[in-house]
Amino acid sequence: MILRRLASTAATTKFSLPPTIRQLLASPTTGAIDSVPTTTVSGWIKSIRKQKNVSFAVINDGSCPKGLQAVLVKGKDDEALRRLSNGTAVRLMGRLVSSPGAGQSHELLVDEKTGGEVVVLGDCNPEAYPIQKKSLTAEYLRDHVHLRTRTSHIAAMTRLRDVLARRINGWFESQGFCYANTPVITGNDAEGAGETFRLALVENQHPAAAKPTQSQPPTPTEFFSRPAYLTVSHQLHLEALATALSRVYTLSPCFRAEPSLTGRHLAEFWMLEAEWAFPTANGVHGVCDLTEALLRETVGELLPTQDVDLLLQDVGDARRRILQNAFETPASWMRMTYSEAIQELEKVSTFGTVKFTYTPKWGHGLQSEHERWLAETLIGGPVFVTDYPAALKPFYMRANPDDKTVACFDLLVPCVGELVGGSVREERVAVLEQKMRDAGLLDGSQGGYEWYLDLRRYGGAPHAGFGVGFERLISWISGADNIRECIPMPRWAGRMLL
Amino acid sequence: MILRRLASTAATTKFSLPPTIRQLLASPTTGAIDSVPTTTVSGWIKSIRKQKNVSFAVINDGSCPKGLQAVLVKGKDDEALRRLSNGTAVRLMGRLVSSPGAGQSHELLVDEKTGGEVVVLGDCNPEAYPIQKKSLTAEYLRDHVHLRTRTSHIAAMTRLRDVLARRINGWFESQGFCYANTPVITGNDAEGAGETFRLALVENQHPAAAKPTQSQPPTPTEFFSRPAYLTVSHQLHLEALATALSRVYTLSPCFRAEPSLTGRHLAEFWMLEAEWAFPTANGVHGVCDLTEALLRETVGELLPTQDVDLLLQDVGDARRRILQNAFETPASWMRMTYSEAIQELEKVSTFGTVKFTYTPKWGHGLQSEHERWLAETLIGGPVFVTDYPAALKPFYMRANPDDKTVACFDLLVPCVGELVGGSVREERVAVLEQKMRDAGLLDGSQGGYEWYLDLRRYGGAPHAGFGVGFERLISWISGADNIRECIPMPRWAGRMLL
Repeated sequence: MILRRLASTAATTKFSLPPTIRQLLASPTTGAIDSVPTTTVSGWIKSIRKQKNVSFAVINDGSCPKGLQAVLVKGKDDEALRRLSNGTAVRLMGRLVSSPGAGQSHELLVDEKTGGEVVVLGDCNPEAYPIQKKSLTAEYLRDHVHLRTRTSHIAAMTRLRDVLARRINGWFESQGFCYANTPVITGNDAEGAGETFRLALVENQHPAAAKPTQSQPPTPTEFFSRPAYLTVSHQLHLEALATALSRVYTLSPCFRAEPSLTGRHLAEFWMLEAEWAFPTANGVHGVCDLTEALLRETVGELLPTQDVDLLLQDVGDARRRILQNAFETPASWMRMTYSEAIQELEKVSTFGTVKFTYTPKWGHGLQSEHERWLAETLIGGPVFVTDYPAALKPFYMRANPDDKTVACFDLLVPCVGELVGGSVREERVAVLEQKMRDAGLLDGSQGGYEWYLDLRRYGGAPHAGFGVGFERLISWISGADNIRECIPMPRWAGRMLL
Repeated sequence: MILRRLASTAATTKFSLPPTIRQLLASPTTGAIDSVPTTTVSGWIKSIRKQKNVSFAVINDGSCPKGLQAVLVKGKDDEALRRLSNGTAVRLMGRLVSSPGAGQSHELLVDEKTGGEVVVLGDCNPEAYPIQKKSLTAEYLRDHVHLRTRTSHIAAMTRLRDVLARRINGWFESQGFCYANTPVITGNDAEGAGETFRLALVENQHPAAAKPTQSQPPTPTEFFSRPAYLTVSHQLHLEALATALSRVYTLSPCFRAEPSLTGRHLAEFWMLEAEWAFPTANGVHGVCDLTEALLRETVGELLPTQDVDLLLQDVGDARRRILQNAFETPASWMRMTYSEAIQELEKVSTFGTVKFTYTPKWGHGLQSEHERWLAETLIGGPVFVTDYPAALKPFYMRANPDDKTVACFDLLVPCVGELVGGSVREERVAVLEQKMRDAGLLDGSQGGYEWYLDLRRYGGAPHAGFGVGFERLISWISGADNIRECIPMPRWAGRMLL
């Protein structure tokens, strides 16, 4: 019998990949650094300036915004050096030394005479390469979505998603929340809103289906024996878990067959959603408290990072200042009720101070123009608008004692508009049942929501929750005008590359 | 203008929800604990034994397997006490004291006389409650999937997913990987394998579609202007990101319209997938090294936790020992080539030692029975089977110099079978292009894979990757016979509740 164990994987040695450029620069052993005999760095050439005896190249492996400057000393055989251009994949061996130049603490000195080496791992034809050094438009890069993460901007955005997700995970863990995976495929059609993707029928794949014969071709059937949709929100499913685990959250894909082509909508987007039982007394304000704490404690410390700096480079000073102020101010974010917001909107609308396309009126939804005026002009920062009319909001939000409004909020932020929506959930089974009946959810046509009532029938506890559009959050932090630049591979009506 | 800030949310005070039961028990201030005046605990009654002057209840908020014992001293008004039964949602106020009883370090003493209080937050009719204390079958609980996380078993599994995902995130971060979100909706139909879910046409939602009129009803169209599928793997998209960021991974939902009804398949499942550029020399063994390190360093330390103990309670000693041994042995896991595996299988098959339904033969796939024999009988532990025939594996795996096999592996583990699949990816553009042409991927009928070639055309670097079925991993650790018990809300052919 031929079997082997590899010595290199003896479980007693801790596994470690070679350091990335970021890891390398994060812990250069000060002082002794120059004596490190040989450092190997792999990555792609971002720019190169060739001179007679020496070339200066920036190499990046995508782990950090700036990469590493390499000083390549001409040796006997310059074939490798000749092949280097923007986009070439290389492995460099050299000595990491303190850099005499401005803009970097260290650089890599690659000199054949001291054991240095340049190895080309993958050529890149500089004429044909679609990611040229020059500035490329957002639209051009969307057309080259498989390559656009190679630009410093999209790379920084992708790393920002990573670090923000990690902070969010840490924050929820510290608050006793359980990360949970709820289904994408669901029988809910989002209350019949009509913007839900539906799965196509399958041919005869249901195990109970009759085998096709020549005279009887396969009949398309529902794979799950009933209509199946892509979820527009994980809330209802999270609520089921919250009645067992108390505090749950997820960061998951959601889908809307949204035909509009704005910079705020995607057909596939990620939502951070949390549900928790036994919220503190404070009603909807307790939910706002948690939401604000989450955002401030996760986003706040990210603002001074190099990636965010790079992303905000081309964003106007005013916008940047408003963003930073939201996180630096010790005061908590403003709150107003929907009724108060309407009053303010009516005031400026009536006096003609502001011209709105839609006249604000109690009982009507806040339009995007209203939301932006509230956050950008009236408040100049994030604002929680609470207690909307029940008729404007879904059935699951808790009815207020006034019987007209519900215990909910939208968090509006400058330049983005609605960033978060949340509420206390209706836990009183009789109240909920009536609302669901009124909404036509219990007449059997909607695929059965009885299970949702069960959650209240058996030990139903007060609970609350919210959802944050993850791409909108990224767009707020990064100053992106369009959320298509806030997800690596965006999908919208008429567009799905790869 | 009416605006307010709430004092309670002054950003200078750090936000904190009340501790969960797990948090409470994790840091009880020793010694001084009995003097803590009042502790509030919210959760659900898991069991209650009522006696004349005192009742003993176990309350759990789902944060830990055991919950907290509460000693409820009868007071003047016993209405609340009378309403308590399995499933009731309650808030208890009492004193956390050292427990004289066995099995718990602390208990909650709830006595009206010292300010104690029992508040019923949600009743639970003990006759009607579907989650009775008695043992319930897996099938019954699948039928009550919205409530089954209230059982200790499914709750422990859900927490195990949480803690394992956190460890995996931590491990990848330490190795310089970037967590990335790749799309669920894709134009790839998984090489035409036919087990891909397709999105149904939408009615006139494409912005370019003509507005319907009375004489011309809406024509169903492709929302994305071309056929759209649910992804079966995030690998190809991750590869695009790996050519920019070097090291990326995701834990994401994947979908297969798999009609088979085994305990190893789900229609919607989660995959942990990683791709990294510039792997260490070692070929496929470098990929195995990383995979093994990931599993050992994330799973290993979880085995002694209370949740895993609970899950393994009803699992046979032999199975548990094999599992523990895989993580405790200092030796690395066994490796053998596909050819060696076939030799071993042929030997026992020819000599009649083992009766297989399918005769093992070089060039044929390993059947489930073969995989299990290799892991369970031949090795008695996890085994990497490497270098399968090219014809059995997808086009993207790197061709070996023998021109017959590819640099890939399957990790087979006892009781589960294939847990991980990975390979070095083909980075040589000419080789890849030929393979793709042979597979019919470049004739235009497959929605265009040209982009995938671009990744190699421009600075294509050597890279590798793997995918782990997350539910299979959970089933291995938890000893579950069926992966339907390894995800909160499973979907399979003919079945999708909620």
